[in-house]
Amino acid sequence: MTDLLIRNLRPMGDAPTDMLIRAGRIEKLAPGIEAPEVPVEDAAGAIAIPGLVEAHTHLDKTLMGMGWYENSVGADLRAMIDNERAERRRLHHDPARQSMRHALALAGNGTTHIRSHVDVDTENGLAAIEGVLQTRDALRDVVDIEIVAFPQSGLMIRSGTAELLDRAMAMGADLVGGLDPCGIDRDPKGHLDTLFALAEKHGKGIDIHLHEGGQLGAFSMEMILERTRALGMKGKVAISHAFCLGMQDWNRTESLLEALADQDVAILTTGAPSREVPAIKRVLGAGIRMGAGCDGVLDTWNPWNRPDMLDRARIVAQKNNMRSDADLALALAVCSTGGADVMGVVGHGLASGCNADLAFLSGSTLAEAVATGGPVLLTLKGGRVTGRNGNSTREAP
Amino acid sequence: MTDLLIRNLRPMGDAPTDMLIRAGRIEKLAPGIEAPEVPVEDAAGAIAIPGLVEAHTHLDKTLMGMGWYENSVGADLRAMIDNERAERRRLHHDPARQSMRHALALAGNGTTHIRSHVDVDTENGLAAIEGVLQTRDALRDVVDIEIVAFPQSGLMIRSGTAELLDRAMAMGADLVGGLDPCGIDRDPKGHLDTLFALAEKHGKGIDIHLHEGGQLGAFSMEMILERTRALGMKGKVAISHAFCLGMQDWNRTESLLEALADQDVAILTTGAPSREVPAIKRVLGAGIRMGAGCDGVLDTWNPWNRPDMLDRARIVAQKNNMRSDADLALALAVCSTGGADVMGVVGHGLASGCNADLAFLSGSTLAEAVATGGPVLLTLKGGRVTGRNGNSTREAP
Repeated sequence: MTDLLIRNLRPMGDAPTDMLIRAGRIEKLAPGIEAPEVPVEDAAGAIAIPGLVEAHTHLDKTLMGMGWYENSVGADLRAMIDNERAERRRLHHDPARQSMRHALALAGNGTTHIRSHVDVDTENGLAAIEGVLQTRDALRDVVDIEIVAFPQSGLMIRSGTAELLDRAMAMGADLVGGLDPCGIDRDPKGHLDTLFALAEKHGKGIDIHLHEGGQLGAFSMEMILERTRALGMKGKVAISHAFCLGMQDWNRTESLLEALADQDVAILTTGAPSREVPAIKRVLGAGIRMGAGCDGVLDTWNPWNRPDMLDRARIVAQKNNMRSDADLALALAVCSTGGADVMGVVGHGLASGCNADLAFLSGSTLAEAVATGGPVLLTLKGGRVTGRNGNSTREAP
Repeated sequence: MTDLLIRNLRPMGDAPTDMLIRAGRIEKLAPGIEAPEVPVEDAAGAIAIPGLVEAHTHLDKTLMGMGWYENSVGADLRAMIDNERAERRRLHHDPARQSMRHALALAGNGTTHIRSHVDVDTENGLAAIEGVLQTRDALRDVVDIEIVAFPQSGLMIRSGTAELLDRAMAMGADLVGGLDPCGIDRDPKGHLDTLFALAEKHGKGIDIHLHEGGQLGAFSMEMILERTRALGMKGKVAISHAFCLGMQDWNRTESLLEALADQDVAILTTGAPSREVPAIKRVLGAGIRMGAGCDGVLDTWNPWNRPDMLDRARIVAQKNNMRSDADLALALAVCSTGGADVMGVVGHGLASGCNADLAFLSGSTLAEAVATGGPVLLTLKGGRVTGRNGNSTREAP
């Protein structure tokens, strides 16, 4: 296990101190620690925070390192889904190699935990699941990866998909994924009954993409809540995007938030600039766990996202019109401990006894770190150095 | 005058060629140009585009290089205005030095033209105008700066401001500025009559900040249009932000767009992620000139903006849900030739005879350049190198 003495770090931007790590955990934080036999790292006044948590991405989609992907598909959700399924073959996309590139890029920039949706469909089968499982195993010492078996192309509209999801769960996926029960699958009852049955069978949680806006999304969210309640799945369900929580009807949104809090359904946001999104302060104020993610990076879907949770904190803050130092620190917390809460990570913090999963940022305050962005100076996972100056210490394939 | 031979550039991402610049203008574009007496620059396959145009910013506000500004003000417009006016004194803000830093940072990242609003108010008088005029003169060879005399703190609610605007115009400001005739000044008729009278007196154009949303913004916009028409100011008025054009009422928006096109009123956007904004394709499709800007950078207002029009192209594209390569190229065009159209720049392009005001970007295509961002490899102004790898060739104060 890893021991390390870090000198001159500033926990959350506070006064400089030292940190002693023993066996991958924080043993103590104090100025002038002496531990003669332990290797020393000088943080040179950098801010230390609990490792960044990429809580909504798609490790199996990125085209990083495969040359620029010329996108002529546009922005229709169905068209993007169909295009991607076809392009995986044409481009000879290797999910193991690509997820490794993506995960290492995140680790190089402060990320210690990832929740990744991974496509399962009747054309490409379980190839993406197999690839990301390989990466998860290979990176056990670098970053924790949760896999959501994700029926990206639809579940009820593509016969055989439910069986594939079942196999993905048996292979080791951590959560059952879903997507737009009305908008994509055109059968909200069938879609959700299938997901919840799979989750029950495998004793796992659920994370559902919900792009549906306004009243349609609210309807799907109610159906998710009904099943969460009826099946005793409190605390085991998350909804990604949840754009409907950004709708104008304040009262309707309020009753949804109350129900989400009551069933401890978590919300994951990307702060999508072009959409109505759940307001961070409103969601947290309702007592709901909330994390954030960069979504897919350099893939057939979009050209803007980067594998960088500090960049995401800025995007999320901008979208939420968060300007003050306190607000920027809050946006950053959603990208760190917020995601850890959603993923159920135990011991994600800076207190003694916590895991030495840490990110070291430049800047005088947390707000400046978010505003000016990366690279993250140092990433630690269980006290082991996994990233330096924005680069993973392990070479990407 | 500057002569330069550039080898191996790719105009707009097309096939590599050479460019001969004579006396600050593009003389010809062709492979294998011979010009023995002319200094040579190797572009190494970089993409060349017409210089980036920062068409909405505030050079007199930045705190760059003055240490991190801790913001506890939040997001209320009136509170931010009052806070800034007070903070200028407390921080001993020097508008000449600060605008120089800001303008050089922009020049280092590909910008060749800037339109800056500059505060005029009864507390700080004309100090900011004087400072930015100094910078404009000092940087004549580096970047063209247009100055908008801007009553940031209100016009009708602060007696004496109109007289100061009048003096600012006499001192050399290029445009009369205004802001939220209803929301801030509570007197749309008084506000707009005063602005248009000043513009008429000095024979100059107008650029009005309009943050007012929905029907209120639409009402103010109508009053701007009425005066533009009545006073024969067609083509000489611009509206910045114009958030009301992002409202849900499609028909109301459509009639505003028709009227804007009819009077050739230009629109300037920042793609503000937290607000409803004018949709780029809709505005351009209506035949309206449109540019973009980063707004204030590292000031008392907000922590997110950077002096980087390539970063802004990404933000604008994200906000507009522009994903395809063609759409990203369009977002970049708004940040280059779009802004030049609004500022009335003659000869801003890559054709022979055009000004050698150019930005050189890395990436295989324009879309990749926007997606992956800076630094801009090389900036030329009149054929003179003003920026390299994101840094101005002139040292900032």
